[in-house]
Amino acid sequence: MPRTPAPVSLVSSFEPFRIGVAGLGTVGTGLVDLVQKNGDLLMRRAGRGIEIVSVSAQNRKKDRGVDLSGYEWVDDPLVMAQDPRLDVVVELIGGSEGFARALVERCLENGKAVVTANKALLAHHGQALADLSVKTGAALAFEAAVAGSIPIVKVLREAFSANKVSSVCGILNGTCNYILTEMRETGRDFADVLKDAQDKGYAESDPSFDIDGIDAAHKLALLSAIAFGVHPDFGRVHVQGIRHLSADDMDFAGKMGFRIKLLGTTRKINGRIAQSVTPCLVPADSPIGAVDGVYNAVFVESDCAGSSLLVGRGAGAAPTASAVAADLVDLARGTKMDVFGFPQTSLESAQWADAGEAVAKFYLRLNVADRSGVLADISRILHRHGVSIESMIQHARDLRGPVPLVMVFHETLQKDMEAAIKEIEMLESVDKPSCLMRIEML
Amino acid sequence: MPRTPAPVSLVSSFEPFRIGVAGLGTVGTGLVDLVQKNGDLLMRRAGRGIEIVSVSAQNRKKDRGVDLSGYEWVDDPLVMAQDPRLDVVVELIGGSEGFARALVERCLENGKAVVTANKALLAHHGQALADLSVKTGAALAFEAAVAGSIPIVKVLREAFSANKVSSVCGILNGTCNYILTEMRETGRDFADVLKDAQDKGYAESDPSFDIDGIDAAHKLALLSAIAFGVHPDFGRVHVQGIRHLSADDMDFAGKMGFRIKLLGTTRKINGRIAQSVTPCLVPADSPIGAVDGVYNAVFVESDCAGSSLLVGRGAGAAPTASAVAADLVDLARGTKMDVFGFPQTSLESAQWADAGEAVAKFYLRLNVADRSGVLADISRILHRHGVSIESMIQHARDLRGPVPLVMVFHETLQKDMEAAIKEIEMLESVDKPSCLMRIEML
Repeated sequence: MPRTPAPVSLVSSFEPFRIGVAGLGTVGTGLVDLVQKNGDLLMRRAGRGIEIVSVSAQNRKKDRGVDLSGYEWVDDPLVMAQDPRLDVVVELIGGSEGFARALVERCLENGKAVVTANKALLAHHGQALADLSVKTGAALAFEAAVAGSIPIVKVLREAFSANKVSSVCGILNGTCNYILTEMRETGRDFADVLKDAQDKGYAESDPSFDIDGIDAAHKLALLSAIAFGVHPDFGRVHVQGIRHLSADDMDFAGKMGFRIKLLGTTRKINGRIAQSVTPCLVPADSPIGAVDGVYNAVFVESDCAGSSLLVGRGAGAAPTASAVAADLVDLARGTKMDVFGFPQTSLESAQWADAGEAVAKFYLRLNVADRSGVLADISRILHRHGVSIESMIQHARDLRGPVPLVMVFHETLQKDMEAAIKEIEMLESVDKPSCLMRIEML
Repeated sequence: MPRTPAPVSLVSSFEPFRIGVAGLGTVGTGLVDLVQKNGDLLMRRAGRGIEIVSVSAQNRKKDRGVDLSGYEWVDDPLVMAQDPRLDVVVELIGGSEGFARALVERCLENGKAVVTANKALLAHHGQALADLSVKTGAALAFEAAVAGSIPIVKVLREAFSANKVSSVCGILNGTCNYILTEMRETGRDFADVLKDAQDKGYAESDPSFDIDGIDAAHKLALLSAIAFGVHPDFGRVHVQGIRHLSADDMDFAGKMGFRIKLLGTTRKINGRIAQSVTPCLVPADSPIGAVDGVYNAVFVESDCAGSSLLVGRGAGAAPTASAVAADLVDLARGTKMDVFGFPQTSLESAQWADAGEAVAKFYLRLNVADRSGVLADISRILHRHGVSIESMIQHARDLRGPVPLVMVFHETLQKDMEAAIKEIEMLESVDKPSCLMRIEML
């Protein structure tokens, strides 16, 4: 059939879109691989080719399993910031300081667009970098920094742009979700499963960034900014990891119809924002309850769209490279967005909520002496704080040692819950530590 | 802290973005409500106000529960196509012909941008309209046409732009999903639940577009175009609705660990595309298996991002208006996209696959005489066609009448499966019709 020829004015856009890739770890190598493998598709989607001009990494000799011979090798990545051939520099070095920060700053100062997957950098310096981006007009895009292939940055910034968001809640760390899934499925304890995850390459040799919730908190600070139009503030995320969870907790949660997930949650409470990364219970038969293994998920609650859920691969070479490349195609197409989805000058300094003001259902595991009167003492304290029990499991397992007593509570003010527990833990018949988790009815 | 002032060159973008709304049914009224309620947010997100200039509908007198007094009333929507004040016309009249088609054509011919939620129009005339859009440079956006508030158009077009998509599979009709969920939860039969859904407003008085799969097929044809870069072709969707499903099927599927969903699937099979809308089984404990009631879901399989799932409200005033408004904000921000996410001239005419070439697991319910020898006959036929049984349920319920015999098969070529069933149905001991469904291991 006859085709309408492209208007002449579009011809200039057939110039390839030229990039420099700084950092050739998992994601950098994945991006090179993607551009080589799907070059034709990128050309079709963007209407112009995406061309890697130069690459940079610490060790030139290392075999990365991809052919780098067609690209200029740059020892000092900062050189890319000055290279007039490059339309964009892709920063995949990582870390909130050092080369990564210097490169991104230098690029933006020079008016050079940046695409990055660096959540630590943006969580710590996002506001200053966004100000720089406005000053020089250089784009700064970071879809790959949050939840891997799940396009939550784009979805909040564009697809839900007409919505007042009330909360964003996500499984934002694949390592933790893998560990929690394995603990549940095999009944093994945390330390054992962590060791296994490290052997399989799902956890770093120093896993603390992941399992202590820092990585998820970096991502959450960025989600707050995009969802609510506030300056990102990593320091205001209440963070708790998953080290303290026992095989018992997984088992009890399951018996009560729940699953345990490390959830990053940012939520408006009476106009103030509460940010937390903590293990939570979600209904086992909900879509987010079924998100297992290395998958991530993000749940968004907003006034018009209602409840929405996105699930996908949260890490790994190809999924993260897919998100980096999506930013590149957007830029190649000429789309330009405010860094956090609102004009930078309209970002507000958030009013932060006191987490104690949150109302939620809770799960509590106590270790108590298995003798009469204990439950009466505990019930009395709960009653005095206005906390009411919805269901309970008690197993007598060892007549001499403490036994777990597990309770699920009706909706309660968090500070009432915490005050009650503080008092309960002072009972002579109750062993510390107890384990309290919020229940999210997603 | 000091703020960088906006560059002077951006001042012109503070002109409001002016729209005309044609059609004031559920979605049109919802859009007016959204613009009134969230006007400040739209202004912040877009960097400029979204202003309704004029509205049009059949009946001016009708009370729609929103204040229309601030807008110009236009009796003939076609007038909007010529109105130089309007940046975009929002077509929410519906239907593949008549006023809706005339208005969209007229707008595009005149270089006026169009935002629409009209899947029927685009499924039938999308290619011609996209050609018009290229010819005059007028944008044509339709996020709201597919899966309500789920931003699947944007996600396929932009977020997964670097991915070779292998399949898109979705619960695309909320009415059907509501009916199937009710049938499962209450054990009632189709007709009974449909009646109830009509009383509650979840199903139209003439429900055939929904329950016979036509509505989902319209949406699926659009998803094929965006996922694979082909001309949309509604005529090549194999369509089967949900009228024939029995309460027994819901029950048996559940006993075998599955749930029944009406799935729209478009998939590449050896480079060819197969499109179908049919009831399918999905694992009950998968994220998509947990998508119940009026929710929609879309599952995307692609080479880099891997498996992705989006869940959200598929219909209703506010969720659909949210999607319309997202398109408006994109246009107000200056983002312009190819109609189907590829330059229109690069869209290909698809090679269509023979559905029989698909390999899948299957569910089969037969109604058989409850006597010895029947199973041997059936097994012999299955064996001859290379079809192997994975599990089976047989209940003796009535010694005189036929009893259901339910089987789940290992992966099989669909045409082998169908050939075997054809032969089985010719057995004197087997009653027609049997019920065959594909199992999607999403």
